[in-house]
Amino acid sequence: LGGAPDLVDESVERLDRRAFAPVLDALGQQGSVGLLPTPALICDVAALDANIGRLQTLIDAAGLSLRPHAKSHKNRYIAHRQLLAGAVGICCAKVAEAEAMFETRAWRGDVEVLVTSPVASPAVADRVAELARTARVIAAVDDLGALEDLAGALSRSGASIGVVCDVDVGLARTGVTSADGALQIAARSSELAPLRFLGLQGYAGHAQHVAPRSERARAVSDAAGVLAATREALEHAGYACSIVTGGGTGSWMVDAADGVLSEIQAGSYVFMDREYRDALAGDPEDCFAQSLFVLTTVISANQRDFVTVDAGLKAMATDAGPAAVADGAGTYAFFGDEQGLVTRSDESVLARGTRLRLVPPHCDPTVNLYDHLWLVDGDRVVGLSGVVARGRSY
Amino acid sequence: LGGAPDLVDESVERLDRRAFAPVLDALGQQGSVGLLPTPALICDVAALDANIGRLQTLIDAAGLSLRPHAKSHKNRYIAHRQLLAGAVGICCAKVAEAEAMFETRAWRGDVEVLVTSPVASPAVADRVAELARTARVIAAVDDLGALEDLAGALSRSGASIGVVCDVDVGLARTGVTSADGALQIAARSSELAPLRFLGLQGYAGHAQHVAPRSERARAVSDAAGVLAATREALEHAGYACSIVTGGGTGSWMVDAADGVLSEIQAGSYVFMDREYRDALAGDPEDCFAQSLFVLTTVISANQRDFVTVDAGLKAMATDAGPAAVADGAGTYAFFGDEQGLVTRSDESVLARGTRLRLVPPHCDPTVNLYDHLWLVDGDRVVGLSGVVARGRSY
Repeated sequence: LGGAPDLVDESVERLDRRAFAPVLDALGQQGSVGLLPTPALICDVAALDANIGRLQTLIDAAGLSLRPHAKSHKNRYIAHRQLLAGAVGICCAKVAEAEAMFETRAWRGDVEVLVTSPVASPAVADRVAELARTARVIAAVDDLGALEDLAGALSRSGASIGVVCDVDVGLARTGVTSADGALQIAARSSELAPLRFLGLQGYAGHAQHVAPRSERARAVSDAAGVLAATREALEHAGYACSIVTGGGTGSWMVDAADGVLSEIQAGSYVFMDREYRDALAGDPEDCFAQSLFVLTTVISANQRDFVTVDAGLKAMATDAGPAAVADGAGTYAFFGDEQGLVTRSDESVLARGTRLRLVPPHCDPTVNLYDHLWLVDGDRVVGLSGVVARGRSY
Repeated sequence: LGGAPDLVDESVERLDRRAFAPVLDALGQQGSVGLLPTPALICDVAALDANIGRLQTLIDAAGLSLRPHAKSHKNRYIAHRQLLAGAVGICCAKVAEAEAMFETRAWRGDVEVLVTSPVASPAVADRVAELARTARVIAAVDDLGALEDLAGALSRSGASIGVVCDVDVGLARTGVTSADGALQIAARSSELAPLRFLGLQGYAGHAQHVAPRSERARAVSDAAGVLAATREALEHAGYACSIVTGGGTGSWMVDAADGVLSEIQAGSYVFMDREYRDALAGDPEDCFAQSLFVLTTVISANQRDFVTVDAGLKAMATDAGPAAVADGAGTYAFFGDEQGLVTRSDESVLARGTRLRLVPPHCDPTVNLYDHLWLVDGDRVVGLSGVVARGRSY
């Protein structure tokens, strides 16, 4: 691993020694970002830590808990920073993501993970039950069948888990669609020995990117109203909700004021992206610092008005429009699987070999394209960390 | 690896033994596709082999060579099938992709790879020169600086490579923009000892998905005209073009008739996708069989008109619109990072746990999301192969 092995953390797999040798040899030295093979996913550690600290402070001040969503970073280094700052645990989107995050002895029994996608089959329940032998697990369910699947699997593994009932708060993606549905889940999970009913989950995914904030607040509060009514029905029937979990980078400020959620699942705030930047631009106090970039290189400069860079639609998620060029040196457009187009105002700029930082349009699925995250401090590469749950969508 | 280790090929890395144990234990048995954790990338081997054989036969009959593009599959099993069928070598989009494909002793010195993205920097040239010590390499260049970078790097590694001049045939993404540009590349590469000038590359990427075929043919032939004129200028100046390489799944039939290209770089034909299916639907003889699917599971079925499945925008590329549901059981829409929506006509169908095959909208960047490709024969899983160049976009 070259001269500085301790800067490459234990989570790094599939290390490409051939392509990475120059930068690994120069790790921590001035300017080593110029040695990175591109496209490369880089994260500025100062901006990252500022974002982690800032949201934790604000959530603490509001009297809520923060359970950051690991689906954004899929990375143990960042999760560890979040836990150190005060997070009560983490969220994972899928069981396989949680399995990958917990493949470290350090976390076993100590970190609590909420798997936010409803359990869909006996096979998934088996993996939840296996994970629960070494980790503290909360599963989301929105169907009585999932409770039977979990109870059966847990009786075989000998572990127990917490359960939250996923509630459809307007997104209509997952969740029970009535208070009666939630009551049935609460009642049945309270009957099954290896399950502890903990409360509710409701994610207002449809509201996260609404602008301006006043409109976003209305959509978020409507969603909170559904959760509040469901909680009231459960408590009236004798089922306490110690957890009401949800929220995101676009809604936490409204959720904190509404006081329905007990914990916030924000994920993207650690990185930010062009889409959140656009949505939150009208309310600077809601924004976080851009810590995530895709570093790209000009590979062809034979056209007058634009150049071609080596980051295309295999280098960034494409669902949220184009990337932004970080220093404003032109505008970016996707230009096929392997390349992008960056406009230039003048033929003399952006020669072949020039490097640019791009702000990804959508952070989560962009991170999911990379095996590694390069940690940078300005132009210094200070570490390499594995995107351990990359591709773990199952 | 369970009961049938020889069905898991040597290229498989990061094997998730926990989640895959049931299917690995049942490999080759009837119905084992039902044991796959989803979303899963599956490839029907009968359709795959039919596609490989069919295009090779047609290209042979036209008197051209086939150099399939490995950027589509990033997989040695499929490349090996293509080489056995008669391919003259492979293409790779980036050096790191080629490095990963050649991390097998079996290919060393025997398989010729054309790296289709222009060499952008001395660091990339160093890696090309290193690769050329164990593989037969052809590099594309569109800038005189790349020739100096390559000559310098090769003088240090002691290897030699072939060079093709990349020509802009209308896409404007990479390539020299004039016959004079190509002449300069030919002249300078002929002066540099470790380089052999082999000819031209021109990819009509803008024409591949044009429908109907008559319009596509016009765009493809216009591009071929640029290559023909460039070749003529080179030959007039004494530079022979033993290779004129380009073409794709949407254009090979026109290229074969035009007679300008000497070899075809098609990639997607092994898999097909919704986008190519739509573009080629008017000309059934241009179509290939759909071999690639994303297997998904219904995870939430509480809504009347649709269900939620576990394949979202981390499971498929999103640049080409929605996936198609393979058996026509509803229509698919992306529904966030982790989920998709499939319509249903009747509440009784598509219960929680139901599995569906999706036709990915765009095959290449979809494959690039998965570490593994499950090889299937109907409902039997017959093998597991590594997407060894996944993420190797640098």
